Amino acid sequence: MVGGGKGAFIGAVHRMAASLDGEIELVCGAFSSNPERSKESGEALYLPADRIYGNFEEMILKEKELPEGERMDFISIVTPNHMHFGPAKMALENGFHVVCDKPVTLNLQEAKELQTIIEKTGKLFCLTHNYTGYPMVKEARAMVQSGKLGKIRKVIVEYPQGWLAQLQEATGNKQAEWRTDPARSGAAGCMGDIGTHAENLAEYITGLKITELCADLTTFVEGRQLDDDGNVLLRFENGAKGVLHASQICNGEENDFNIRIYGEFGGLQWFQMEPNTLYYKTNEEGTRRIRTGVGNLSEVTKANIRIPAGHPEAFLEAFANIYRNFALTLKAQMAGQTPDPVYTDFPGIEEGIRGLAFIDTCIASSQSDQKWTKFVS
Amino acid sequence: MVGGGKGAFIGAVHRMAASLDGEIELVCGAFSSNPERSKESGEALYLPADRIYGNFEEMILKEKELPEGERMDFISIVTPNHMHFGPAKMALENGFHVVCDKPVTLNLQEAKELQTIIEKTGKLFCLTHNYTGYPMVKEARAMVQSGKLGKIRKVIVEYPQGWLAQLQEATGNKQAEWRTDPARSGAAGCMGDIGTHAENLAEYITGLKITELCADLTTFVEGRQLDDDGNVLLRFENGAKGVLHASQICNGEENDFNIRIYGEFGGLQWFQMEPNTLYYKTNEEGTRRIRTGVGNLSEVTKANIRIPAGHPEAFLEAFANIYRNFALTLKAQMAGQTPDPVYTDFPGIEEGIRGLAFIDTCIASSQSDQKWTKFVS
Amino acid sequence: MVGGGKGAFIGAVHRMAASLDGEIELVCGAFSSNPERSKESGEALYLPADRIYGNFEEMILKEKELPEGERMDFISIVTPNHMHFGPAKMALENGFHVVCDKPVTLNLQEAKELQTIIEKTGKLFCLTHNYTGYPMVKEARAMVQSGKLGKIRKVIVEYPQGWLAQLQEATGNKQAEWRTDPARSGAAGCMGDIGTHAENLAEYITGLKITELCADLTTFVEGRQLDDDGNVLLRFENGAKGVLHASQICNGEENDFNIRIYGEFGGLQWFQMEPNTLYYKTNEEGTRRIRTGVGNLSEVTKANIRIPAGHPEAFLEAFANIYRNFALTLKAQMAGQTPDPVYTDFPGIEEGIRGLAFIDTCIASSQSDQKWTKFVS
Amino acid sequence: MVGGGKGAFIGAVHRMAASLDGEIELVCGAFSSNPERSKESGEALYLPADRIYGNFEEMILKEKELPEGERMDFISIVTPNHMHFGPAKMALENGFHVVCDKPVTLNLQEAKELQTIIEKTGKLFCLTHNYTGYPMVKEARAMVQSGKLGKIRKVIVEYPQGWLAQLQEATGNKQAEWRTDPARSGAAGCMGDIGTHAENLAEYITGLKITELCADLTTFVEGRQLDDDGNVLLRFENGAKGVLHASQICNGEENDFNIRIYGEFGGLQWFQMEPNTLYYKTNEEGTRRIRTGVGNLSEVTKANIRIPAGHPEAFLEAFANIYRNFALTLKAQMAGQTPDPVYTDFPGIEEGIRGLAFIDTCIASSQSDQKWTKFVS
Repeated sequence: MVGGGKGAFIGAVHRMAASLDGEIELVCGAFSSNPERSKESGEALYLPADRIYGNFEEMILKEKELPEGERMDFISIVTPNHMHFGPAKMALENGFHVVCDKPVTLNLQEAKELQTIIEKTGKLFCLTHNYTGYPMVKEARAMVQSGKLGKIRKVIVEYPQGWLAQLQEATGNKQAEWRTDPARSGAAGCMGDIGTHAENLAEYITGLKITELCADLTTFVEGRQLDDDGNVLLRFENGAKGVLHASQICNGEENDFNIRIYGEFGGLQWFQMEPNTLYYKTNEEGTRRIRTGVGNLSEVTKANIRIPAGHPEAFLEAFANIYRNFALTLKAQMAGQTPDPVYTDFPGIEEGIRGLAFIDTCIASSQSDQKWTKFVS
Repeated sequence: MVGGGKGAFIGAVHRMAASLDGEIELVCGAFSSNPERSKESGEALYLPADRIYGNFEEMILKEKELPEGERMDFISIVTPNHMHFGPAKMALENGFHVVCDKPVTLNLQEAKELQTIIEKTGKLFCLTHNYTGYPMVKEARAMVQSGKLGKIRKVIVEYPQGWLAQLQEATGNKQAEWRTDPARSGAAGCMGDIGTHAENLAEYITGLKITELCADLTTFVEGRQLDDDGNVLLRFENGAKGVLHASQICNGEENDFNIRIYGEFGGLQWFQMEPNTLYYKTNEEGTRRIRTGVGNLSEVTKANIRIPAGHPEAFLEAFANIYRNFALTLKAQMAGQTPDPVYTDFPGIEEGIRGLAFIDTCIASSQSDQKWTKFVS
Repeated sequence: MVGGGKGAFIGAVHRMAASLDGEIELVCGAFSSNPERSKESGEALYLPADRIYGNFEEMILKEKELPEGERMDFISIVTPNHMHFGPAKMALENGFHVVCDKPVTLNLQEAKELQTIIEKTGKLFCLTHNYTGYPMVKEARAMVQSGKLGKIRKVIVEYPQGWLAQLQEATGNKQAEWRTDPARSGAAGCMGDIGTHAENLAEYITGLKITELCADLTTFVEGRQLDDDGNVLLRFENGAKGVLHASQICNGEENDFNIRIYGEFGGLQWFQMEPNTLYYKTNEEGTRRIRTGVGNLSEVTKANIRIPAGHPEAFLEAFANIYRNFALTLKAQMAGQTPDPVYTDFPGIEEGIRGLAFIDTCIASSQSDQKWTKFVS
Repeated sequence: MVGGGKGAFIGAVHRMAASLDGEIELVCGAFSSNPERSKESGEALYLPADRIYGNFEEMILKEKELPEGERMDFISIVTPNHMHFGPAKMALENGFHVVCDKPVTLNLQEAKELQTIIEKTGKLFCLTHNYTGYPMVKEARAMVQSGKLGKIRKVIVEYPQGWLAQLQEATGNKQAEWRTDPARSGAAGCMGDIGTHAENLAEYITGLKITELCADLTTFVEGRQLDDDGNVLLRFENGAKGVLHASQICNGEENDFNIRIYGEFGGLQWFQMEPNTLYYKTNEEGTRRIRTGVGNLSEVTKANIRIPAGHPEAFLEAFANIYRNFALTLKAQMAGQTPDPVYTDFPGIEEGIRGLAFIDTCIASSQSDQKWTKFVS
């Protein structure tokens, strides 16, 4: 693991998610650029001293020297955005597979360079766009694919948060600090941090690409360096229309990521904060609650559920699905087998590139007087 | 009453709303342009034969001749949009007050002409923008006015319906027929019918005018003459941003009109289909359910509640609030008294003009390559 | 109308409910046992002075002398419980039909006497057990009748309120005063006021009689004269089991009357505070929301809906259904026609007797060491 | 680990829960009484062959011989109920701490014997009454303890499931088979399996003992050997009253375990299927949603949350809290330190004894003609 030292929110999430299914074991780490802090963090995780490294370069080189079967199989990168590209590149070029937190890199150029490296090295690359790991998200995608909704006409995807309604970055909040700092976070604030999740979810479920958009980004909190709110009109490749909005200043909202999709024959609605329910709506029958573990679900959905109906699974389990699917695919590949297709459904470099292109397109659109800006990647 | 013969949805709504509080009595009507149908409708309403008229002109002239105290006090216009201006003008000019369904007229020009007539005649004019009659909508407005939310930053207002997801106007559905016919409905379909409710609600609660917008209107159903869907970015006079979307093709949605408003210090959320709850959100305290009849509510809110907490009031009661507030204001005025300010809060010609200007602005914006179109009225 | 003077909650409810559909007109009243108060109340309702009476005896005798077509058709009794029997008896015996608030009388003996009078006079008698007027309650009953749930196994019916969590009757609250006073309310407090609604709803929807019960009634608030809480185990005639609990001390609850019914093949759930939704549950399909106005509903249900889907109807509309169904049945009868069976579904003396027997049985059971007490009526 | 071989639902749950926080590592197991199956299961879990045992006796004896620091620290018993006592006793007597699934043993006598052994050996014993591991359950308990609700008056606790609405045990469903078999499950079916969770939750949150009860247990499905439904009136030591009902035949219900608690000054409501919300209700303020991670929560609550507000935690995380709290307490004890009191809050033998006494009391009451049966343990 690279990053994720004491106090880092997402590092702990990655560790819990990776360990949940017993398929992945944490064997080493460079948890901080500060060697003391890295050591302390590693010890708290019960790692042997010789597998706790002072930086990622050291980790990659030392691990490479270990005998096969003993050395790490892949690295997991959980640093702030500006520290993704370096370790990913070096790991891949030294024969390691990579799991990386999103956004994949600090900017689009790095992401495209990384894509080239991935292709060249042939290593597996997994991007933890975690919300696509939820079983009901997979069920939604399967329902769209099955044609149950008919042609998709309209998509509403929202990601409102309230935690940055005041200038939290001035209060010593580390999460707020790096996420509002262009040097560490990238060109966008809210749109990069959570808008990309919204874009990814919409394209994942519908299977449709957004082709042009019209964005209005705002920085509401005085003194903030990056956008903390954005409203975007969307147009999809098949003629569908949509709205995407994300915000960090929606006072009182926690993490109310949600999506609605309407086709010719029916609609779907999903809320991240009540993740085990998928609402299926038709004019004829009203609303039905499709639930994790109840009734006929798609094979992919069922492969991403662990416990029976009524025993809620949540954020960490969805995150763990990404890790487990990656691990099982890697395991099959290492064993020279064809991976089971229900597990190969995890995000990779392509989703990463879409995300960075989305950020760039939103910023360009927001600064433009022209209504529509093409979204290509 | 003008219009609202047998089978008309909104005519019956107006009658129930008007009669609910015992302040208004239906005394005469021209229920249809077909005299036979008018007669039949009036008899079903237990009206005496001599107060059932063949058309509105006859009604206004004959009623005018009746002695004061016996003749009608005001007319209520519940015809399709293209039949609003005529009876409103004639009634006002013959000394009658007017209640009119929305949109106020077929187009902005008529609306402005009507405004002049209202000013000249000094008669009361009430526009049944009924959703502002809900107690929790009034409470939301009162909370914003009180400063509890601080400066308003973001508004999301949605009006999704699904009933026109197919070409209902080709199936003999009268409601669908006139609402999708430019000659009877006006320049816009979905945006005129329900988008204007969304615009009105957003401006009513926030007390802020929308100053520019960027609209993307669509006709999804082949063969339809007017838009059946629209997504709009909003900018408000104080710098707030927003999204408004309305649709008639959101399969499985009934009438899920709802609004969210976020200020510096808190947020509000209200759903028309669960109208007795107003969600008040802050980062500090999470979400509180403010309920009709529970706890400390504003004076205006309390004046618009009839029954105790837990006994739900709904669409007809909100509609009736508009009528009752109009009636009590008219009664006070007729008695030479100053109306109680808690009752003078009903929509009029100004809201009507805003609505028609909104329609025109959306259409202009939707046809433009330019991002922002000014919304003036 | 007998009772329902200024400030009485339920009198206003009856008037609004009766007037909503234009089938019933208030023509006279004895609104208070205080003639001054009666006069004042009648004038506020725009009644002519000669139709406002000082007491119900006067009203019945004077109205009887008026010519047919002019005199009232029926009386509506909205006084506290101890004042139901007298006016009902006198009205019936003088040729008037009767609508009466529930519970039908102060005690079971009176109710049975009234039943004899009703049978003898042949007049129509309607008891406003209003919750059975909700369309989704009627749909639930229709679904059970249709066999969709199979044999009913379990019923959970709840009526929690919180308004009497403190000694409100000592604070000048009129509603609290008479409802906690045995002389005006009857032998039970909570169980009489709201427990009977729960009993009625359970028997109405299931079509099954409760045959024995085991009750534990409590007075939690010191100084109160009647029970303010009760928990009851139920057994139904077909072998189904159940739980009924009602309370006035559930702090923070408004009027959360709700019911769940489970049969061999499915379950139903309905909440009074969200009355337009009926949840239909099966192990196979999960939960479906059946909604007022959406999809295939029973004929009786449809006859009790006024406005389209998504336009919520609520407490007053359900109450109005009782009045309108009574009025249409009466109208048909007066015209010598067979009433349409979709309108004859309103509660009468039988439901009233069940309710009073329920109260007596609960009290007897609560005082008994024996587990089960037979519930006969 | 004892039990929990391939296909066992609860074994996998225990493993995921134990591993989530990186404090516990699975080092050995006797996963099945069938040695082949045990071996296969252990290999799938990546255990070395010499730590996979053919039965629990072998495991305990062999592990005991391993050097300290290498041998297992505690055993986790996840077998059906009739197989709890044997391994627990042997493990304790051979110096191992024990985590055990609930109910603690097959019957009350065994449980009391186990209590004696625990006291004698001084080993730690943890019973996975997992629902008390939810943060919002802990918050509810803390709120009651703080006096915020005043004296508790009423408790409603429900555990409806639908999965046994038909004779599933005749269809080859392993879960249904053992849970409806008296030899493996104990004297009660539904009341043992889930009724005990309800009893435990009610006593945990209120801090009050149930002192007497009146139960009506039923077997609705023909051919079933044990109760599949039960309704129980409760009386608590402080005079509070309550209702507990649990069922396996509530068609369409998943696992809708929930509780409501009302005191003098307020009420609380919690649903297992939406576990991150605790509803706090008062007559004055209506309902507030208390949410995992939002606002001021008790220290114990905060210690049982892993990720920020809006990132839902669920069943496995609550289960993991039990394991982690046990592990941290054990770790402190092994290090000769006083465990942090926020972690010592996990269920043990006392809760196990209460559960078995509850089962016995319910059965006795159900068979009795007497209203109240004392509940002592």
